[in-house]
Amino acid sequence: MLSKATIVVHGGAWKIPSSLSSASLRGVEAAARAGGALLRGGGSALDAVERAVRSLEDDEAFDAGHGAVLNAAGRVELDAVIMEGSGLRAGGVAAIGAVANPVSVARLVMERTEHCLLVGEGATEFARANGVAILPDLELVTAAALAEFEEMQRFPTSVKTLFNHGLAHDTVGAVAIDEAGHVAAATSTGGISCKMVGRVGDSPLIGSGCFADDFAGAVSTTGHGESIMRLNIARQISLALEGGAPPDEACAAALANMRRRVGGCGGAICVDRTGRAAAAFTTERMAWAVERADGSAESGIDPGGGARDGVEVIRLS
Amino acid sequence: MLSKATIVVHGGAWKIPSSLSSASLRGVEAAARAGGALLRGGGSALDAVERAVRSLEDDEAFDAGHGAVLNAAGRVELDAVIMEGSGLRAGGVAAIGAVANPVSVARLVMERTEHCLLVGEGATEFARANGVAILPDLELVTAAALAEFEEMQRFPTSVKTLFNHGLAHDTVGAVAIDEAGHVAAATSTGGISCKMVGRVGDSPLIGSGCFADDFAGAVSTTGHGESIMRLNIARQISLALEGGAPPDEACAAALANMRRRVGGCGGAICVDRTGRAAAAFTTERMAWAVERADGSAESGIDPGGGARDGVEVIRLS
Repeated sequence: MLSKATIVVHGGAWKIPSSLSSASLRGVEAAARAGGALLRGGGSALDAVERAVRSLEDDEAFDAGHGAVLNAAGRVELDAVIMEGSGLRAGGVAAIGAVANPVSVARLVMERTEHCLLVGEGATEFARANGVAILPDLELVTAAALAEFEEMQRFPTSVKTLFNHGLAHDTVGAVAIDEAGHVAAATSTGGISCKMVGRVGDSPLIGSGCFADDFAGAVSTTGHGESIMRLNIARQISLALEGGAPPDEACAAALANMRRRVGGCGGAICVDRTGRAAAAFTTERMAWAVERADGSAESGIDPGGGARDGVEVIRLS
Repeated sequence: MLSKATIVVHGGAWKIPSSLSSASLRGVEAAARAGGALLRGGGSALDAVERAVRSLEDDEAFDAGHGAVLNAAGRVELDAVIMEGSGLRAGGVAAIGAVANPVSVARLVMERTEHCLLVGEGATEFARANGVAILPDLELVTAAALAEFEEMQRFPTSVKTLFNHGLAHDTVGAVAIDEAGHVAAATSTGGISCKMVGRVGDSPLIGSGCFADDFAGAVSTTGHGESIMRLNIARQISLALEGGAPPDEACAAALANMRRRVGGCGGAICVDRTGRAAAAFTTERMAWAVERADGSAESGIDPGGGARDGVEVIRLS
């Protein structure tokens, strides 16, 4: 593993309650370790981000795969995307049924179709046709998610209020650069409790939920999906990296702009083409972890890295 | 109508056959007239682009609304988006069932939900719940589209080949700036014949199929959807406009970059915050029309405006 090989993961930017904080921290650390081990063994950034996101999807502490929330009809609809920076290849699935690892179905879309995004029943059927098990919804849903669903049906509130007041779960993601200098990014989510049937947020959308470009770097975002997608936050960060901006500044500028222009909160992680990395958020907390070429690891969940323009920013290299 | 109020429309960038060229030209001219009349009456850019795109959707010469193509299962799945530049509000529908005017359902998503994108059955149900008629698929499909579907089932080929060789229909769109200096953009498509069920291209995605920002301008794109969405072409053009680039240069740079990075062909129209406008394409033809504040109108379908970096570019002001 050369010096710049690095993986960064996040477990969603939101008001993570104390009851979930240590599980969240352990979860992102385990995901970074899984992806990092793969990178150290000479694996690709693409394999590393898929591995890390699968680890987060399998962890019930996170709203992705196992741990997903229910939509307004009481069903599971999942979104995920994966992208690699050498050929700008990408695949995504949106509003797909209950699969354990949507990120891997997204990769199948990238590798086995000439399309970049499959949605709804078509995405679910594609997964089934490619040997992916479609689970009973409740196999992915925790007792806590069920309770949240029931409470939200009693006290409806707006999605943006949920996010900005930090009451919504959220999205997981990973970005990596490998020995060869290739970058990749992946993002996965169960969305928001009681979302409308068919609602798709930023997560599965190239340039909103993630972006990867070997000439720039890799980005994964989290937060109020509608705000992120209205500004293509991942693409904006990638273009800043391409122009030479440091990762922490690129993330801070995009998140500050998002709050200013559309009032949404969220977070982002990124690694640039030279291996510099950062995590940033405007929510109360965001669980993140990094594992670097030299085997060193770091993680966090609380502010303390230093605020810039109202954005909590953590330089990771 | 002050001097900068302008509407530009396109009927898709592809190898438009001679048999369709005069219908395409008449169609874009009628759409620009409809939107332009609204602007001259003091209407908003948002109303003008919706009106223009509805006109194109109602015209069977174009692959959007009436005139849509069939997916691999022989069904209609439509995509559309609309965005306004003062509040960066946007709405989109993807893989929605047979509605006559998907752009108006996209506007309902923007105005009646807190979401920005509804897909599949959820989008169709939302339309129905809001009083929009769901038509029998075949009411939207022309005899020509049926014949194309049958031929493509016999001779399968790749979507990118279809586009780059100009054999695919495509997308309609409109951009406008109104008296008050607000901009808006809208895009609508029936997609590609024999596309996979649930396949979504760039058209309904903010920053890919369209973008509108009063600090920059408005953009609508057309062409190989997977290429456009992998680079967020509309957002890229908008960011260039925000930085002060002339519309023709902004479009040319983005389309040249798209061909260089991912090999895809397409087109774009845009108007900037000062009312300067341009149309550009890398396909054989693109039907476009403009109607300006002074009532002057212009339209075209063939190259001849002047190539820049391999992109056919037409300055419209």
